[in-house]
Amino acid sequence: MKRRIYLSMKSLAEARELWLSRFDPDAMAKAEEVPVTAAAGRVTAGPVMAQRSSPGAHQAAMDGFAVAAAATFGATPDRPRQLAIGQEAFPINTGHVMVPGTDAVIMVEQVPDPEADPITVEAPTFPWQHVRRVGEDLVRGEMVLAEGVEITPWAQGALLAAGVTRVMVRRRPRVAIIPTGTELVPVTELDRDLPDGRLPEFNSTILSGLVAEAGGVAAVAPIVRDDLGGLAAALKEAIATADMVLINAGSSAGTEDYTYQAIDSLGEVLVHGVAMMPGKPTVLGVVAEKPVMGNPGYPVSAVLSFEQFAAPLIAGLAGKRLAPRPTLTVYPAQNLPSKPGLTEFIRVTLGRVGDKIIATPLPRGAGTITSLVRADGLLVVPELSEGLEEDRPVAAELLVAPADIDGTLVVLGSHDNTLDLLTTMLRRRDHRLRLSSGHVGSLGGLMALRQGRAHLGGSHMLDPETNTYNVPFITATWRGCP
Amino acid sequence: MKRRIYLSMKSLAEARELWLSRFDPDAMAKAEEVPVTAAAGRVTAGPVMAQRSSPGAHQAAMDGFAVAAAATFGATPDRPRQLAIGQEAFPINTGHVMVPGTDAVIMVEQVPDPEADPITVEAPTFPWQHVRRVGEDLVRGEMVLAEGVEITPWAQGALLAAGVTRVMVRRRPRVAIIPTGTELVPVTELDRDLPDGRLPEFNSTILSGLVAEAGGVAAVAPIVRDDLGGLAAALKEAIATADMVLINAGSSAGTEDYTYQAIDSLGEVLVHGVAMMPGKPTVLGVVAEKPVMGNPGYPVSAVLSFEQFAAPLIAGLAGKRLAPRPTLTVYPAQNLPSKPGLTEFIRVTLGRVGDKIIATPLPRGAGTITSLVRADGLLVVPELSEGLEEDRPVAAELLVAPADIDGTLVVLGSHDNTLDLLTTMLRRRDHRLRLSSGHVGSLGGLMALRQGRAHLGGSHMLDPETNTYNVPFITATWRGCP
Repeated sequence: MKRRIYLSMKSLAEARELWLSRFDPDAMAKAEEVPVTAAAGRVTAGPVMAQRSSPGAHQAAMDGFAVAAAATFGATPDRPRQLAIGQEAFPINTGHVMVPGTDAVIMVEQVPDPEADPITVEAPTFPWQHVRRVGEDLVRGEMVLAEGVEITPWAQGALLAAGVTRVMVRRRPRVAIIPTGTELVPVTELDRDLPDGRLPEFNSTILSGLVAEAGGVAAVAPIVRDDLGGLAAALKEAIATADMVLINAGSSAGTEDYTYQAIDSLGEVLVHGVAMMPGKPTVLGVVAEKPVMGNPGYPVSAVLSFEQFAAPLIAGLAGKRLAPRPTLTVYPAQNLPSKPGLTEFIRVTLGRVGDKIIATPLPRGAGTITSLVRADGLLVVPELSEGLEEDRPVAAELLVAPADIDGTLVVLGSHDNTLDLLTTMLRRRDHRLRLSSGHVGSLGGLMALRQGRAHLGGSHMLDPETNTYNVPFITATWRGCP
Repeated sequence: MKRRIYLSMKSLAEARELWLSRFDPDAMAKAEEVPVTAAAGRVTAGPVMAQRSSPGAHQAAMDGFAVAAAATFGATPDRPRQLAIGQEAFPINTGHVMVPGTDAVIMVEQVPDPEADPITVEAPTFPWQHVRRVGEDLVRGEMVLAEGVEITPWAQGALLAAGVTRVMVRRRPRVAIIPTGTELVPVTELDRDLPDGRLPEFNSTILSGLVAEAGGVAAVAPIVRDDLGGLAAALKEAIATADMVLINAGSSAGTEDYTYQAIDSLGEVLVHGVAMMPGKPTVLGVVAEKPVMGNPGYPVSAVLSFEQFAAPLIAGLAGKRLAPRPTLTVYPAQNLPSKPGLTEFIRVTLGRVGDKIIATPLPRGAGTITSLVRADGLLVVPELSEGLEEDRPVAAELLVAPADIDGTLVVLGSHDNTLDLLTTMLRRRDHRLRLSSGHVGSLGGLMALRQGRAHLGGSHMLDPETNTYNVPFITATWRGCP
């Protein structure tokens, strides 16, 4: 039995610097040609030039009659011109190509009787009046899109208008995910009862989704048992085709945590252990000049370490820039002590109570995936801080749309399943309403109500002396209140 | 030859109210069951309950030794307990299932010699110390996700942890797009030269991308000629399977614009003509209780009318909420007169010059797709306004990330292709740098520089009297400046 200690625990900032400065995503990125019709969301690998002008022919810019402007010169209401349909005046609709020999459009509204033949023209028109001329939008040879631009639906339109049907884009980086753990069972087998001591392997589903959000394509390898030879073989196979590898987990310092050794045997370990919580058991390394990350096993740790280390590299390879999350000033509902020397990420629910947005902490355990599912935001406790103080404003990173927060009913107290029903009923009544429920016990709920941290509190407490539910406690809690 | 006038031009607000109040997306939406592993980004069609507890078994929360806490009671450094490996103490790693008969974990760091057998325990541990107990995260029967919730990667993880492998979600609404126009050629034929008078059909690609962004799935029908019978037949066929139909275009009042008639013949027209620019030739109707939109033919009009009318309905059917675009206070680089009675959307480039963000208008023609491609934002001129004033602050809706704007070099003046090269060079130097180039002519560029509206201006003007380039004009432009 051999245990290791963390090789060289680094601060979050140091670890990011060591890892991100080691790779040059622009130099590592690959390009591929795709049809423009399938290029939405992709990033141009070079500038794209127009192959033809757009419009490619003069077009009517109004509904009316295409004419030669010269034929209308001198026309007045007193001395109108008569233009024969099909010879001197041609009915034309917006967007249609001009008839040869014509160079102007008379708007239908300006012709006294548009059904007549000939039509009467009472005013002169000038050449190119109401005509979109060749190349008005794009001239052949002109740059349609610069390099490094994300292709929007309208950029697809512009490319097609410019006669460009295929375009060179950054290839989506391929990220291999290797789940490790003798105790893990694939989720495809979850419909059966799990054998004793076996756990469902769901982190690869979470990581695959995060890879896609960052602009990559995930490929999940079969589960590898806790065995150095097997893990090293799987890593070697993955690194041959992938642009990046995530090993999940085996990155801790336990007896059967072989991720460090596997990376070390094939390449170089840059960081083993990051002073962040959740997320400490993170290994960062390089194999065959490609980034390899040992991602922690607890799901919340896996997500947060992915965001810090994997996401920026994947986005960089894809040519995308990750937008920082919007932030909002919030007030913690309670003191949140935190260990100095660690950057801590605290999941919170958010709701507006009175004129403040109250941040109520969710369970802080890294194994508690529901703490992420229920979170509206993240509070970050910096490395040198001993924690956050109750009711002292801090910035929260938002995990939901800012508008969601104003529609949130904050319920703190004893939990009851009727709150789940209420969530559904509220939402059916109005999409903008949400219910955020924190299970802090009956007395915690009453205190939250008294201190203006919640809209609603669940309570079921029996006072044995008076044999009464709740009321004595409410009376006691509110004593001295206005 | 028959021309129609717009049946009943409505203001943008009236048209939205008539259209959006006519449909109840929640009642119309359909549900389908999908594997949880493929459910990222989908929206739950009902509350989802845990099928099993998570963890499903007691787990070690630390690396160390699983023991029966009772076996350690009374241990002190003076009277340590010896626990035999494999009988009273079991090496265990974080996340692994507890050994039967054990109820606590002693951290490896607290054991003097972890390699020894028996190990020495110098302090008592209490039951459930460093153990994640069954159901700590999720209890069977508990609600994992409420109805109407967008499924994140971590929500996928929570569902799988709760033994849920398939989930009922809103079906993505199916949107049929019918391109109409005798002059249109499919983009699959764009590699050849276009025959005289034919135009590439690229709007269906733009609209398909916008449908996907709103949460729907687009199906593009073959191009329909300008012919009422053919269009009505195509609409009838599309409405049989689609949740919504977009006809593009034929929605204007030209002689061959049959969209109004096709909708009218099979259902009801609610709106024909919207007082917005671009986007006026919009038809809104109902066929078989499903929304049918006649989308304008000019690409910018098609995009803007889609955003106002199609996007909210598609998102509603998908169960998603469209986040409003972020806005920023900007200063128009020039007066922007606009026709009262119309809501106008002006595409602008944005860049910070000094302490202000300057909005420079792009070409206002609805056929100019590049005006959208190059736009960083939209200025909205309200219906009752006569336009926006130079240097008077207004809110711009952002089409790019706010951070992009600070890295934008604003170039106004005479255009030159070297500016396209410069764009690429800048971006290769630093991803955060962009170049936004407005072609306002040499003198316009000099004036923009003088007035602090640009960082750089292109100029090539010859003064014939002195036979000198540029300098006399710069001198004249700057006369009287500090």
